[in-house]
Amino acid sequence: VNILVINPNSDARMTRAIGRTAERFAAGAYRTECLAAPGAPRFIETYEDEMRTAPGMLKLVREGERRFNAFVVACHCDPNLDLLKEATAKPVVGIGEASMKLASMLGHAFSVISATAGSIPNKLALVRAYGLESACASVRAAADGDYLRAARLALRRDGAEVIVLGCAGMTGWDGKLRKALGVPVLDPVVCGLIVASGLAACGAGISKVRRYGAGG
Amino acid sequence: VNILVINPNSDARMTRAIGRTAERFAAGAYRTECLAAPGAPRFIETYEDEMRTAPGMLKLVREGERRFNAFVVACHCDPNLDLLKEATAKPVVGIGEASMKLASMLGHAFSVISATAGSIPNKLALVRAYGLESACASVRAAADGDYLRAARLALRRDGAEVIVLGCAGMTGWDGKLRKALGVPVLDPVVCGLIVASGLAACGAGISKVRRYGAGG
Amino acid sequence: VNILVINPNSDARMTRAIGRTAERFAAGAYRTECLAAPGAPRFIETYEDEMRTAPGMLKLVREGERRFNAFVVACHCDPNLDLLKEATAKPVVGIGEASMKLASMLGHAFSVISATAGSIPNKLALVRAYGLESACASVRAAADGDYLRAARLALRRDGAEVIVLGCAGMTGWDGKLRKALGVPVLDPVVCGLIVASGLAACGAGISKVRRYGAGG
Amino acid sequence: VNILVINPNSDARMTRAIGRTAERFAAGAYRTECLAAPGAPRFIETYEDEMRTAPGMLKLVREGERRFNAFVVACHCDPNLDLLKEATAKPVVGIGEASMKLASMLGHAFSVISATAGSIPNKLALVRAYGLESACASVRAAADGDYLRAARLALRRDGAEVIVLGCAGMTGWDGKLRKALGVPVLDPVVCGLIVASGLAACGAGISKVRRYGAGG
Amino acid sequence: VNILVINPNSDARMTRAIGRTAERFAAGAYRTECLAAPGAPRFIETYEDEMRTAPGMLKLVREGERRFNAFVVACHCDPNLDLLKEATAKPVVGIGEASMKLASMLGHAFSVISATAGSIPNKLALVRAYGLESACASVRAAADGDYLRAARLALRRDGAEVIVLGCAGMTGWDGKLRKALGVPVLDPVVCGLIVASGLAACGAGISKVRRYGAGG
Amino acid sequence: VNILVINPNSDARMTRAIGRTAERFAAGAYRTECLAAPGAPRFIETYEDEMRTAPGMLKLVREGERRFNAFVVACHCDPNLDLLKEATAKPVVGIGEASMKLASMLGHAFSVISATAGSIPNKLALVRAYGLESACASVRAAADGDYLRAARLALRRDGAEVIVLGCAGMTGWDGKLRKALGVPVLDPVVCGLIVASGLAACGAGISKVRRYGAGG
Repeated sequence: VNILVINPNSDARMTRAIGRTAERFAAGAYRTECLAAPGAPRFIETYEDEMRTAPGMLKLVREGERRFNAFVVACHCDPNLDLLKEATAKPVVGIGEASMKLASMLGHAFSVISATAGSIPNKLALVRAYGLESACASVRAAADGDYLRAARLALRRDGAEVIVLGCAGMTGWDGKLRKALGVPVLDPVVCGLIVASGLAACGAGISKVRRYGAGG
Repeated sequence: VNILVINPNSDARMTRAIGRTAERFAAGAYRTECLAAPGAPRFIETYEDEMRTAPGMLKLVREGERRFNAFVVACHCDPNLDLLKEATAKPVVGIGEASMKLASMLGHAFSVISATAGSIPNKLALVRAYGLESACASVRAAADGDYLRAARLALRRDGAEVIVLGCAGMTGWDGKLRKALGVPVLDPVVCGLIVASGLAACGAGISKVRRYGAGG
Repeated sequence: VNILVINPNSDARMTRAIGRTAERFAAGAYRTECLAAPGAPRFIETYEDEMRTAPGMLKLVREGERRFNAFVVACHCDPNLDLLKEATAKPVVGIGEASMKLASMLGHAFSVISATAGSIPNKLALVRAYGLESACASVRAAADGDYLRAARLALRRDGAEVIVLGCAGMTGWDGKLRKALGVPVLDPVVCGLIVASGLAACGAGISKVRRYGAGG
Repeated sequence: VNILVINPNSDARMTRAIGRTAERFAAGAYRTECLAAPGAPRFIETYEDEMRTAPGMLKLVREGERRFNAFVVACHCDPNLDLLKEATAKPVVGIGEASMKLASMLGHAFSVISATAGSIPNKLALVRAYGLESACASVRAAADGDYLRAARLALRRDGAEVIVLGCAGMTGWDGKLRKALGVPVLDPVVCGLIVASGLAACGAGISKVRRYGAGG
Repeated sequence: VNILVINPNSDARMTRAIGRTAERFAAGAYRTECLAAPGAPRFIETYEDEMRTAPGMLKLVREGERRFNAFVVACHCDPNLDLLKEATAKPVVGIGEASMKLASMLGHAFSVISATAGSIPNKLALVRAYGLESACASVRAAADGDYLRAARLALRRDGAEVIVLGCAGMTGWDGKLRKALGVPVLDPVVCGLIVASGLAACGAGISKVRRYGAGG
Repeated sequence: VNILVINPNSDARMTRAIGRTAERFAAGAYRTECLAAPGAPRFIETYEDEMRTAPGMLKLVREGERRFNAFVVACHCDPNLDLLKEATAKPVVGIGEASMKLASMLGHAFSVISATAGSIPNKLALVRAYGLESACASVRAAADGDYLRAARLALRRDGAEVIVLGCAGMTGWDGKLRKALGVPVLDPVVCGLIVASGLAACGAGISKVRRYGAGG
């Protein structure tokens, strides 16, 4: 099994960090490659950023169709996920969807720690689209990058029992936070890999009837 | 990673079939063991059956706490799942919850093929408890064990794009049905393993604050 | 009409208190008997407690089938309710379900006062399972047993208009709180009796087709 | 306890039938009186009918405030229920709300048999307002007054396990249908009495804070 | 196009204010007339007020059927809306429904500023009836008529992005608040006109099959 | 008021038809201009089509910012709506959202007639995103372009009371269908204009705090 992890932004440091997490987690059981979408903007913060990175993401999937068994979209707002699901019959997994659905299996409710306050409404729209309204205690922004404090507030005030790191850029912080908080903390990149590698291994992929029927 | 797959019923043939699927899917990447719950009834069809198998399931988790890194409940009605999640801080994964949440990532809507008509209301209650109402096209019983016919009706009439095998006893039928139907077909035992092994590998488990806080 | 009120725990003082409430409320219009489930744990606080009390509860229903016209489960977390509904065609009423559904007819929204913070997530799951999300203003724990204070906060901050006592152990407190708060306060044991005696009197009971079809 | 059952229409035969059901069910345990709303239209089929009957219904509640301990609105579309709840601190129970909420405790899903096809959308709006979407299998009109046939279709095609008679005019048909169908069949007038008499007996009534705070 | 704006209360100053807003907004593109419902109470604050104004509102629609092309109900609690929709095949638009549905197209979530705390539960019931639960951030009462402060709290604490003036009596305040807040502020009277005039212009009106089939 | 109607596809015949509808409906009360997105694909049927048309649509909004007071996206699947809402503080209205929200004010439930079966899942996802699940009776594809037959089935079998034409290409068919069916039939292009012109006239536009805060 060979998995392509797509970083929708062009931040090289983030691509490397995501790649390291992927390799370490795969641990030789399967291969992973992390590539930034060609022509991607520096960050994915706006709907326009999502649009600008779409053609590059699609190109990676199209060209990787033969070589890879599954694709992971390594941005927690799951940009262009429908587009890529349409483009291939291989599994395409958004780390937002994967991390929140896995989190819902580990406790009564999870909270998402978001990098910026501006992304909260969009994340809430995803929560609703994925049917996770009652499983999601809150989406909280980490002011000044203080993830720990945001997570503590989620546990104390919002009734969260599980924490989801709401940005690919937070990859690698799960262990430290888990120790400090004493609750499960999910690294979304890892969650994407769990689902993508598992589905690829069992031969399942995106359904090509109706909704995503155009390609693949 | 070492995973205990718990068959809540005492059907030896089913325990073996589930065990074979698990071993074949793990393929050496991690170890799996499949055990029937001691004192389990022959089948799990009623709420009383679920009650009768509870003490044995709990015993397996308690005694396996040290030896195993995760637990899979290999019955699609997820019997006693809250009980086991409470009993340990390791991942405990119901194959019903895992298969339906994974299915929701592969298409617009999935249908569950159930072994008997009698289990349909209970499965619909699970669908609702898991927040999957809009992702679930239907739960259909396979009259006379004709899974293929039930799945075809789900695709044609209910708008399903993905099929979930709704009974551990159907394990191994996914490949054959996928070929016949041309859509993804999920083996729930495999889905349970994907989630359990993945969570165990990344060090996440059941949250011990609030809802499942009593044990583990 | 003769109603068996089942106390799922073994606290004799609580069994007596529940029994007194039942007798006083029935006031001779029908007979009530309150029995603790044989082999029950001291309190019902965990899913394991629920499991341990299940066989005794089932025994009471099975053996009482002839003698009683209806059964009330006198614990606000409605433990093993599906199991007992399956076991008989007589009415089986959980005091959690009955009290919250009656409360929803008396005002825009109700709040449940819970004995412990630990039971809040489980109660929220019941609220959702019963379709009462928009009718439930909040579930609040009474720190240090101060029900009055918890209820006042529910009225002031959560928009509650009706209070539900969320524990059989609070039985008898409704009058005092009603006076202090000036809003309806429901004793869940009484609510269970209202529904159970009424259904028994009109000859209705648990449906034996599909979901609870196995017994009775 | 003395309960006023309000027939919102002026059909004398229906008032008598409802009154008979009420007396027979109360069986001396409490007193009931059934009165038609003064100035009521012949039938309640339209929103205008609901408007025309409102002043008379309000008059009955206002003038009966001292004499009666609870009020039942004996029309399954629960006309002017908010208005009456506002007018008194005694219990006011709509037979639509009471019958459907009681039905939801007896099986996985209920169906309402409606007298006319025209009332289906309005009943569906009530189902949603009461949070009963997942508990309601269907609302079916009885073509040519053939309740039995409509109920059979509900059981066979819609997955209903419990039948609710969706019109006060059907009062008294529950026993016959129960025998023919083998499932619980609820007479809504009886359901209204169960809830109203029970709430009156325990001293609970409509909350006078916020939503219904204007009167009573 | 000629539109009748119905003020359900008898406050002459409010009728004039609503009429001025309507004329100014129509700006000659269509004609508007604002009439108080004959026999209306001074204010619409209770369900009884809604009942008292119903016959006058119905009379205005019946008598205006020929002369007017559409009707606007100029009270944000949409009193008797079903009644009027039933009475005519012309468009009948409640300013509550129109303003909240338009607001949902301008941002992630809106808040309603209510004139009194007492009307909050009723407005929340409307929000739910209209399917706007996830689009509505909050309903907030303006203590002492300080709309600006209430709106600021909605933006800061509730996550609102759009403000809806929740009372016809607030008509004309939108411009001032928009300037002070920097977000869209909707005048509900204007919203009602937008929808009513638009629907009238394209020849659409209330459907006369099923739910509102009795009249018109 | 000057409104830009954007056709996201490059079909010149459709651009002209949409433009004609817009001009005729505006009838001189405001100006409209209909432009195809530069570089748009021939049709918008896939997520890739939506991606390909995004840059051109954005360009039209950016360049039209000064000249136009509002923007209408004239494709019923509301492609790239979030993107355009983010790009300007003027109103941006999708004809899918506008037509379905207006339809929900004219009857109990509406059905959408879709041009192709393939677009049904995507439309259902929109229905859910807009909170219209209970207002939408069904989405039906018109086999062989027979809109009338599809609409008749929606009325007879699905309980629809209002019909929404689910494709900009169906513009102009509303009058003919209304006559044949006897129920309201909404032309989505007209609906988009009603909302866009109305919002522009009252000075409201897309909120620039949080969700769509990046531009405009």
